Amino acid sequence: MRAAFMYGPGDVRIQDTPDPTIQEATDAVVRVVRTCVCGSDLHPYHSMPASEEGTPMGHEFIGVVEELGSEVSGLAEGDFVISPFAYSDGTCEVCRAGFHTACPNGGFFSAAQAEAVRVPQAAGTLVKVPGGLAGTDESLYPSLLTLSDVFLTGYHAAVMGKVEAGKTVTVIGDGAVGLSAVLSAKRLGAEQIILMGRHTSRTDLGREFGATDVVAERGEEGIAKVLDLTGGWGSHVVLEAVGHMPAYEQAYGIVRAGGVISRVGVPQYEDAPVGFGSLFGKNITLTGGPAPVRAYVDDVLPDVLAGTLNPGKVFDRTYTLEDVPTAYQAMDDRKTLKALVTV
Amino acid sequence: MRAAFMYGPGDVRIQDTPDPTIQEATDAVVRVVRTCVCGSDLHPYHSMPASEEGTPMGHEFIGVVEELGSEVSGLAEGDFVISPFAYSDGTCEVCRAGFHTACPNGGFFSAAQAEAVRVPQAAGTLVKVPGGLAGTDESLYPSLLTLSDVFLTGYHAAVMGKVEAGKTVTVIGDGAVGLSAVLSAKRLGAEQIILMGRHTSRTDLGREFGATDVVAERGEEGIAKVLDLTGGWGSHVVLEAVGHMPAYEQAYGIVRAGGVISRVGVPQYEDAPVGFGSLFGKNITLTGGPAPVRAYVDDVLPDVLAGTLNPGKVFDRTYTLEDVPTAYQAMDDRKTLKALVTV
Repeated sequence: MRAAFMYGPGDVRIQDTPDPTIQEATDAVVRVVRTCVCGSDLHPYHSMPASEEGTPMGHEFIGVVEELGSEVSGLAEGDFVISPFAYSDGTCEVCRAGFHTACPNGGFFSAAQAEAVRVPQAAGTLVKVPGGLAGTDESLYPSLLTLSDVFLTGYHAAVMGKVEAGKTVTVIGDGAVGLSAVLSAKRLGAEQIILMGRHTSRTDLGREFGATDVVAERGEEGIAKVLDLTGGWGSHVVLEAVGHMPAYEQAYGIVRAGGVISRVGVPQYEDAPVGFGSLFGKNITLTGGPAPVRAYVDDVLPDVLAGTLNPGKVFDRTYTLEDVPTAYQAMDDRKTLKALVTV
Repeated sequence: MRAAFMYGPGDVRIQDTPDPTIQEATDAVVRVVRTCVCGSDLHPYHSMPASEEGTPMGHEFIGVVEELGSEVSGLAEGDFVISPFAYSDGTCEVCRAGFHTACPNGGFFSAAQAEAVRVPQAAGTLVKVPGGLAGTDESLYPSLLTLSDVFLTGYHAAVMGKVEAGKTVTVIGDGAVGLSAVLSAKRLGAEQIILMGRHTSRTDLGREFGATDVVAERGEEGIAKVLDLTGGWGSHVVLEAVGHMPAYEQAYGIVRAGGVISRVGVPQYEDAPVGFGSLFGKNITLTGGPAPVRAYVDDVLPDVLAGTLNPGKVFDRTYTLEDVPTAYQAMDDRKTLKALVTV
């Protein structure tokens, strides 16, 4: 089959590679229908050490079940499925508590920009789209694909941040995850949604998704603006969808006493301020992590299928699998917000 | 009046100082009945730069209202009152949200190891003991005094940690706050309460307060022990009542995926690990801060007055005000868990 591999910074290639096969009785093989490029794929695109072998890429996909291991229940060949970006058994104590990304039998996909993917723990992982491929309008594919990662990552930020009616929510970052966080905050009833971002085409979609205010300024200026917009108190909830230290610092600058910073941007740092002068003194709660999207798919799928929830609007350009290298470059150049890939 | 001042490491003196007076119309002056020495008073006792002037000490007290400013409502001279360790207006947005320690008109007491204390924002701060001094048994004074800080600091840890029935809670630290956190976890319905501490006289009180297990080991060994006691999953909630980095590291070592670390030990660090390898990867929530004890006094006061809640057991030795220097030394030498001071 054809699949994307990264060989070093800026070096993505589509090449032949062996078809995936069933290796465990709990596996499935899924033929990919749509995949995409994630903002987090750009981190290695900048900094991956060059290699001879290349690394398979991609973790978001929807597709059709091609083959099932002997122990997989609840699925059939031909099913149209959404795959979370992490696989999980769905039965252990952390999965039952809704934290599937920490499942001891789980892991993260890493080869989904391809024609087919091997899915471990298929029964716990894959979610069937009720209408099947034939019965699902193609116009819904982008939104269904966002349930693999991007929309539900924003949703996880909002859930962990305890967004609810009457709360002021500030979203840091106007990338696809930040915009998804705006849509999620709206869905959960937030009253005021402040989007911090400075790319007008993106913040416009943010307004369409529910942002009531846009703050283009960063750092001290941005903090002052958000404080101004919240009567000087700061934001009840801050959804941090970037992952860099300046975004973290901005977050604790704008959150109100007793408020919550919920992070879903993968931190590009290990240590950060948490002491009296940053989090502790104001009783700030810091939360978030890799989204257990499997916990949320069932909740939102009916609205996506009904067309009343359209998170797929974050895809602003479609590429073929052969064009994936171009898709990386376009996202890195910020010419594309998020690249959809037809397979 | 007589009052305690600290002049440098290990140097506490009782001396004459002017009586406090009403300075704002919202002030009260309270004649102290009981005060005490806090674990946090030992930080300057170790590291305060020596000075000529000395610094007044203490922030926990119960007493009798001696004088009221003209704008103080709801209180009368002669009232027997509990004072939170922080004053607050009780009316602003953060107070109404239950985070009184961040009140913009508030602050922390710093001269309560004395015969009398000036109380700013008296109406928002002081809590009347219904029976008055004459109608309240002296044996209840220690428990009433713990509502000024220590018990409700432990309680805040448990509340912010979302302790509830069915949860496993681990308390790091067998000081008076840690033991108060054990008692609070029990009150909130925790099923398994693991106390990490190695002073048997203290952990024995911890068992009396509700600890089901005691782990004396620290570091990697202590982490392994707690994982073992929790079926390998870790603790749903960790209440960190120490404030030093090894306790923080221990906390994220023993908390389960999706769990909560709630800190009330004042952090003796500013930066700490929060990235993928510590908090983020496992969706750990970090919370806590200076306890807004004013938010909790009304809830627990009836049980303290009824004698069914006895947090005052953390006081294991009583001193006079003149003996406060000895009390500091005894606490620093770990001969006294927490020193009660009669005034």
